[in-house]
Amino acid sequence: MRDVAVIGIGQTPIGELWNLSLRELGASALRQAAADAGIEKPDTLYVANMLAARLSNQAHLATLIADYSGWRGIEAATIEAACASGGMAFQTAVRAVASGMVDVVAVCGVEKMTDETTAQITSALATAADADYEGSHGASFVALNALIMRRYMYEYKVPHEAFGAFSINAHKNAVNNPNAMFRKAISQAVYDRAPMIADPINLYDSSPICDGAAAVILAPLEMARAMNKPVIRVRASASATDTLSLADRHNMLSLEAASASAKKAYQQAGVNPSDIDLFEVHDAFSVMSALSLEGAGFAEAGTAPYRAQDGEFTIGGRLPISTMGGLKGRGHPVGATGVYELVDLITQLRGEAGANQVQDAALGLTQNIGGTGATVVAHILERAG
Amino acid sequence: MRDVAVIGIGQTPIGELWNLSLRELGASALRQAAADAGIEKPDTLYVANMLAARLSNQAHLATLIADYSGWRGIEAATIEAACASGGMAFQTAVRAVASGMVDVVAVCGVEKMTDETTAQITSALATAADADYEGSHGASFVALNALIMRRYMYEYKVPHEAFGAFSINAHKNAVNNPNAMFRKAISQAVYDRAPMIADPINLYDSSPICDGAAAVILAPLEMARAMNKPVIRVRASASATDTLSLADRHNMLSLEAASASAKKAYQQAGVNPSDIDLFEVHDAFSVMSALSLEGAGFAEAGTAPYRAQDGEFTIGGRLPISTMGGLKGRGHPVGATGVYELVDLITQLRGEAGANQVQDAALGLTQNIGGTGATVVAHILERAG
Repeated sequence: MRDVAVIGIGQTPIGELWNLSLRELGASALRQAAADAGIEKPDTLYVANMLAARLSNQAHLATLIADYSGWRGIEAATIEAACASGGMAFQTAVRAVASGMVDVVAVCGVEKMTDETTAQITSALATAADADYEGSHGASFVALNALIMRRYMYEYKVPHEAFGAFSINAHKNAVNNPNAMFRKAISQAVYDRAPMIADPINLYDSSPICDGAAAVILAPLEMARAMNKPVIRVRASASATDTLSLADRHNMLSLEAASASAKKAYQQAGVNPSDIDLFEVHDAFSVMSALSLEGAGFAEAGTAPYRAQDGEFTIGGRLPISTMGGLKGRGHPVGATGVYELVDLITQLRGEAGANQVQDAALGLTQNIGGTGATVVAHILERAG
Repeated sequence: MRDVAVIGIGQTPIGELWNLSLRELGASALRQAAADAGIEKPDTLYVANMLAARLSNQAHLATLIADYSGWRGIEAATIEAACASGGMAFQTAVRAVASGMVDVVAVCGVEKMTDETTAQITSALATAADADYEGSHGASFVALNALIMRRYMYEYKVPHEAFGAFSINAHKNAVNNPNAMFRKAISQAVYDRAPMIADPINLYDSSPICDGAAAVILAPLEMARAMNKPVIRVRASASATDTLSLADRHNMLSLEAASASAKKAYQQAGVNPSDIDLFEVHDAFSVMSALSLEGAGFAEAGTAPYRAQDGEFTIGGRLPISTMGGLKGRGHPVGATGVYELVDLITQLRGEAGANQVQDAALGLTQNIGGTGATVVAHILERAG
C-alpha cells in the first residue's frame, strides 16, 4: 500500500453561475489544480456529482469533463453518495493511487443547481433521502433536518438562539474567502429574526442553493516529496453508513456513521481528537454542525451549540471549524461540497489561508455527510514537510 | 499491489419486474453473491446504477442497498458512467482490494427501468449522450446508434441482413439461461422482417428496456485460493474515454476507447487477442457488437458482421460472444449490464454454464460500453486453479 499525497488544488467561486455550464465549471477547477500540481494530465478522473442527471439532463459527467479539460482518453467515472459524493470520490481516488495501478488521479466535485425552479431543486435534493418511505410522503430534505433540529432542541433543552454561533462563525470566515458566496458577516440579532424555512430551521440555519466546482490532484507521497511545495499527506480515509430513513435509526440525535467514520479515521492515523488542529465540518444545517462535532468526539451530546457560543470553534479557538466559510458561508453545491472541504483544509495546511490562517495548522479533519447522516466520510490530512 | 480474485457471484432474472423495488433487486443479487462467497458482509459496497435518480426519485442508492442487505454501517458509494457503470464499479472495487485498505468488496449493478413511461425512459437514456450538443437537438440514444449503423453500412457496404447473425446467436444462447429475458430463438427471416425502431436499427438490433441486478464479491487472491471452489483471478482492469458527442469524433466507426482499453488490458495481462477463449461483448445494438469486436482486435474494420455470419462467434466457434444471451437476449438493465457481463464470464470460467458451456474456457474478456463509445471498460479474468 503506497502512501498518498495531494499535489494540486483548484476551485471556482461559488454562486449563481448562470453563464457557466457543468463542463466549464468542472474543467475550470481541474485545470487550476493541474497547473498547481504541475502535471499535464492525470491517469484517472473521479467526478463527484449528485444532481446533473435531474437538473441538467446529463449523466456520464466524468467522461464529459475529462474531454472538456483536454484529457480525452483518460479513465473517468462519476461517484455519488448524495451530499457525501465529494468525500467518497476522494476516498476512491486515494485507493486508486494506493493500489499502484495508477499514479496521478484527479478528483472534481461539481454541481449546478440554480438553473432550475425551486420546486425541481427541492425534489432533486429529496432523492438523498429514502424515496419510498420519506420522499413519497412529501418530506423535503430541509423538513427532515427540521425534525432533527426540533428533536435536538427538545431533548437537550437547547434554545434556538444557541445555534446562531455556528452561522455567525461561518459568515465571519467567509468574508475573507474570495470564492465564498456570502462574504458578509451576520450578528446574533440578524440570525434571530431571519425568515423561517422549515420550523425551527431559519434562513441562517440553512446552506444556500448554488453552483461551483472544486478539484484536487492526488499522487504517490514520493512524487509529492520531490516537488517544491508543502507536502500534504493523506493520513486517514474512512467512511461509514447508516439508514437513509430517519424512522429506521436507533436515535436520530446520534449520527452513528459520523462517530464510526471518525473513530476509524483516528485509528488509521493513530491520533486522538485532541491532536486535530482544525475541522472542516459539514454545516449544511446548523444542527448538522452540532451532530458532526458530537459524533467526531469534540463535544458531549447536547453541548456543541454552547461550546460554539463560547467561541471554541472560531479561528483562534480550541478547534476552528468552517474556516473558509463552510457550507453556510462559502456555499454548498451539494456534490462538490466534500471536495471544497478538502481544498479548504489543504489551503490551511499549506499556510495559504491568508487572514483566516489557523496558526500552526499541521493536522486537520474533514467530515462530509450525505443525507441526514446516512453516509459519512472522514479524512485526516497532514502537513508532512 | 495485491492480486485480486472474485469469490462470489449473484444475479436476479431480468425482465419487467414491477413487483420488485430497486433495494429488493440489489439485495437479492448481493445476498446470493455473499452466500456463494461464504461471507457475512463485505467491507465496502460499490453500486453501479445510471437511472434511479430520474426514474425512481432515488439517489444515494449504494447506502440504501447496503442497509437493506443487512449490512448497515459498511462503506458504500454509487459509481456511474452511463451503460459502463457496471464495469467502472468493478474496476473501482478491484483497486480498493488491491490497495490493501479493505479486503472484501461487493459490487452490485442494479437498474429499474420499466416503471415509467417510454417517453421518460427515452429521455433518461439520452442523458448518456451530450445533453448540450446532442440531447438538446432531440437525438435519442437509439437515434445516435442508428446514425452509426447507417454509416457503417454505407462505408463498408455491409447489407442490413448481415447484422442478423449477432441477434440470432444472442437469442439462441439466451434460451438456456434461466435468468435471460428472451428465452426464444429467432431466425434470419424473423430478424429481417422485424419492426423498425430507428432506421436502420430494427427491434432485433436493439436490446430491451428491463429491470435486474447482478453482483460479485472481490477479495485478495490468497483468500480465494483458500476456498474450495474454482479460483477466478482478475488479470487486467482497464478503461478509456472518448468524446460523448459523435460529432467530436475523428471517425465514428472507430471506437478509440474500445481499442485503447482492450490494448491496455492485453498489456496488463501479458496476452494477445488470440489467447482469449470467450468475449462478453456489449451488444446493446448489433452495430456495437461489430465495433467492439473490431476495436478489441478480433476482426478487421468492416468485417465483423461477415465473421458472425460465418459462425465464428457462436459457442463452439473461434471466439464465443454473448454466451448467456448478451445484452440482446439476456437483457440490458443499463447500469447493471457491466456486472452481468462479468457474472456470465465467471460462470463460464467456473465451468458452470450448463448447455452453453464454452469448452476449456480459461481466459475471458468483457467490454462494457457507455454512451456511443465514450467510456469503455475492459476486464480480463482467468481461471487460476
